[in-house]
Amino acid sequence: MKLLTVGSVAFDAIETPFGKTDKIVGGAGTYICFSAAFFLKEQGIISVVGEDFPSETLQELKEKGVNLDGLQIIQGGKTFFWSGKYHNDMNSRDTLATELNVLGTFDPIVPENYQDVDYLLLGNLSPEVQRTVIERLVKRPKLIAMDTMNFWMDIALEELKKTIKLVDVIIINDEEARQLSGTYSLVKAASIIQAMGPQIVIIKKGEHGALLFHGEKIFYAPALPLEEVFDPTGAGDTFAGGFMGYIASTDDFSFENMKSAIIAGSALASFCVEKFGTNRLKEITTTELNNRIARFVELSHFQMKEI
Amino acid sequence: MKLLTVGSVAFDAIETPFGKTDKIVGGAGTYICFSAAFFLKEQGIISVVGEDFPSETLQELKEKGVNLDGLQIIQGGKTFFWSGKYHNDMNSRDTLATELNVLGTFDPIVPENYQDVDYLLLGNLSPEVQRTVIERLVKRPKLIAMDTMNFWMDIALEELKKTIKLVDVIIINDEEARQLSGTYSLVKAASIIQAMGPQIVIIKKGEHGALLFHGEKIFYAPALPLEEVFDPTGAGDTFAGGFMGYIASTDDFSFENMKSAIIAGSALASFCVEKFGTNRLKEITTTELNNRIARFVELSHFQMKEI
Repeated sequence: MKLLTVGSVAFDAIETPFGKTDKIVGGAGTYICFSAAFFLKEQGIISVVGEDFPSETLQELKEKGVNLDGLQIIQGGKTFFWSGKYHNDMNSRDTLATELNVLGTFDPIVPENYQDVDYLLLGNLSPEVQRTVIERLVKRPKLIAMDTMNFWMDIALEELKKTIKLVDVIIINDEEARQLSGTYSLVKAASIIQAMGPQIVIIKKGEHGALLFHGEKIFYAPALPLEEVFDPTGAGDTFAGGFMGYIASTDDFSFENMKSAIIAGSALASFCVEKFGTNRLKEITTTELNNRIARFVELSHFQMKEI
Repeated sequence: MKLLTVGSVAFDAIETPFGKTDKIVGGAGTYICFSAAFFLKEQGIISVVGEDFPSETLQELKEKGVNLDGLQIIQGGKTFFWSGKYHNDMNSRDTLATELNVLGTFDPIVPENYQDVDYLLLGNLSPEVQRTVIERLVKRPKLIAMDTMNFWMDIALEELKKTIKLVDVIIINDEEARQLSGTYSLVKAASIIQAMGPQIVIIKKGEHGALLFHGEKIFYAPALPLEEVFDPTGAGDTFAGGFMGYIASTDDFSFENMKSAIIAGSALASFCVEKFGTNRLKEITTTELNNRIARFVELSHFQMKEI
């Protein structure tokens, strides 16, 4: 198996200045798998849902090549639910409700047929659950990437640091990088985080793009300038899924290839925010994706002679 | 004459978390000329100083090829003085003192030998002074660019709009673009500002780089990720000077060449912030500049196959 994702499969209810949704399908694992599926015919997921989760979505994931042997369906259980409201600038949001439900007692079991996995992506989850999966893999994957968030820094920093120590790549946003490192400059923050373990630090800056710190090297990926961000939910997970899907499919984690992987993730994330939930992500064609990647090339490439 | 700049030549006193200065030489025109001089053997400036201004700086400007026929020295007058203090994040600052002095009654006289100018850069000044220079040029330059700031939007919006209508390029920061357009999205803001006159809108985003809107096309220039910003004063002027110096020297304002010009400006601005005032700017070698431009290439270029 080329890529294994550990991440929530969940319900969200979202309110933005453009509208609001009832309970819709969300969760980091869901966005990651739909996104990585653009590059991989086969992948696996470790997650948990309740019996209230729609079988249609599970069917859609299967059709995209996602093996669900690691997805536990808890009879009598309820699926994780998050509800949030975005502010007018779309850069900040309030959490209105978090119902952990079956995620609260989640024991991430690794199916036998997942043991040969090459690339592991730990979506934003409790650092203990993330670490448990690493420990349960008999052979270490070629590359382990993790997402996390300020919530875990607030309530479980020591646990989080233990997990960070075990991974190769950490993907966080600018505020989280500042909180984790205790410093404002993102260049210094990346260096402090590299000293915690991961040699590759990816800092997402929303509309300002993303920075890749790969050892001593730096890449600055632009974000596509958008007229409107309709719903930012899942954009970070879509980015991570596209990034790791690209890496796993090319089996190359050099600096140069990671640049391309970041553009792939950025392009997919730029679609994700155009509609509520996973809707836009599920309908993108390969032609649309290639056209958008071409826009990233125009956006960032220049020719210049020596002065 | 290839490039003419209208801009203040002044004194600054600056306080940052790293230290403070006494009165040192500053002013938009000063930074612009030192920066543009990397690309031009000859250029002109329209400005005004008092008799307190150091002749050494005027000599340095002359040695860089800056024709000072348009620089008025007012006997008995005092040079414009600005004093400011930067906050810890370096993204905001408080103005501690503004003494207009000779700038308060500045009448921008265009010397006869400046009349053949090809490229005009209006540094941040009163929009009336900026417009007066345009009106006093018998032949319209090939390209007119202007800088401005929120101060003029607050106290002289209608005057400012009259000037904006006459220019081809406007260079402002993100907050100014939002204030001028009355909208949050920078893509929408650029479109609203284009409808005011200039078809080319450059939005500076500090540590997040700069956006070039050139008709329908967009370029996203990265900023060099820096460990520390020692003193941001003059970085925007240095950017504008490098940008217009590059355009004027290549005599090409196509989208593709403007991309290169923005990188040239960004590279020079990244040096400017390393020391107080114009100090770093004056000592950069061509080799250093070429090396830094090479870092911008590594920072932003990627190779990608069709998916």
